[in-house]
Amino acid sequence: MVELDYTKFDGLLPAVVQDWESGDVLMVAFMNEEAFKHTVETGKATYFSRSRNKLWVKGESSGNEQMVKEIRIDCDADTVLLKVVQKGGAACHLGYKSCFFRKVEGETLVVTGEPLFDPDEVYKK
Amino acid sequence: MVELDYTKFDGLLPAVVQDWESGDVLMVAFMNEEAFKHTVETGKATYFSRSRNKLWVKGESSGNEQMVKEIRIDCDADTVLLKVVQKGGAACHLGYKSCFFRKVEGETLVVTGEPLFDPDEVYKK
Repeated sequence: MVELDYTKFDGLLPAVVQDWESGDVLMVAFMNEEAFKHTVETGKATYFSRSRNKLWVKGESSGNEQMVKEIRIDCDADTVLLKVVQKGGAACHLGYKSCFFRKVEGETLVVTGEPLFDPDEVYKK
Repeated sequence: MVELDYTKFDGLLPAVVQDWESGDVLMVAFMNEEAFKHTVETGKATYFSRSRNKLWVKGESSGNEQMVKEIRIDCDADTVLLKVVQKGGAACHLGYKSCFFRKVEGETLVVTGEPLFDPDEVYKK
């Protein structure tokens, strides 16, 4: 397995997730060593959930898995870039394609795009 | 100023930097509130350097500034996406266009692309 530097944030490193076709940045999540290994071995993007304090295979609740097409590592080996095919088209838990669906305009945030699914339906709250 | 959530990593949040034209992910750095404010007010990407423990206007040593064209905020307001024009074409301190110049192939990292500058020349070590 490729060696990464997990020392900077208590065993975690940021993973940027980019759409394989459009190049849109979909989200940022965190990985521990186990999550990185699971991602490489299964080809499914796997993170460490800081809120739930456990391994999180993206899409395990929503079905919206991320199939990993390419993994890149930065110069300091402390950040990962995943290029993925996003099942269902939406990476954000709010139903948007990208978590970055809000743009800063002066003092306000402007929503761009429309949700592709209804979170209440998908996550059965 | 737009309000962000700086609580998760001791006052810092990750900033993903994307090339305005190509959409390539150039680097990931961290911002504190001062760095975000400085970025918005000056239009020049400004981070917080964890190694030097101070504000870091990207390009202040190399001249390779990043002119910010768009700022996006994620759903949790704890991650920033900057779309920038990279002066000199290279964001990485090793001279590459992107810090993510290495691709995982099995057990190894494969370098893709060529450096655009010689770090020893630019940083006058």
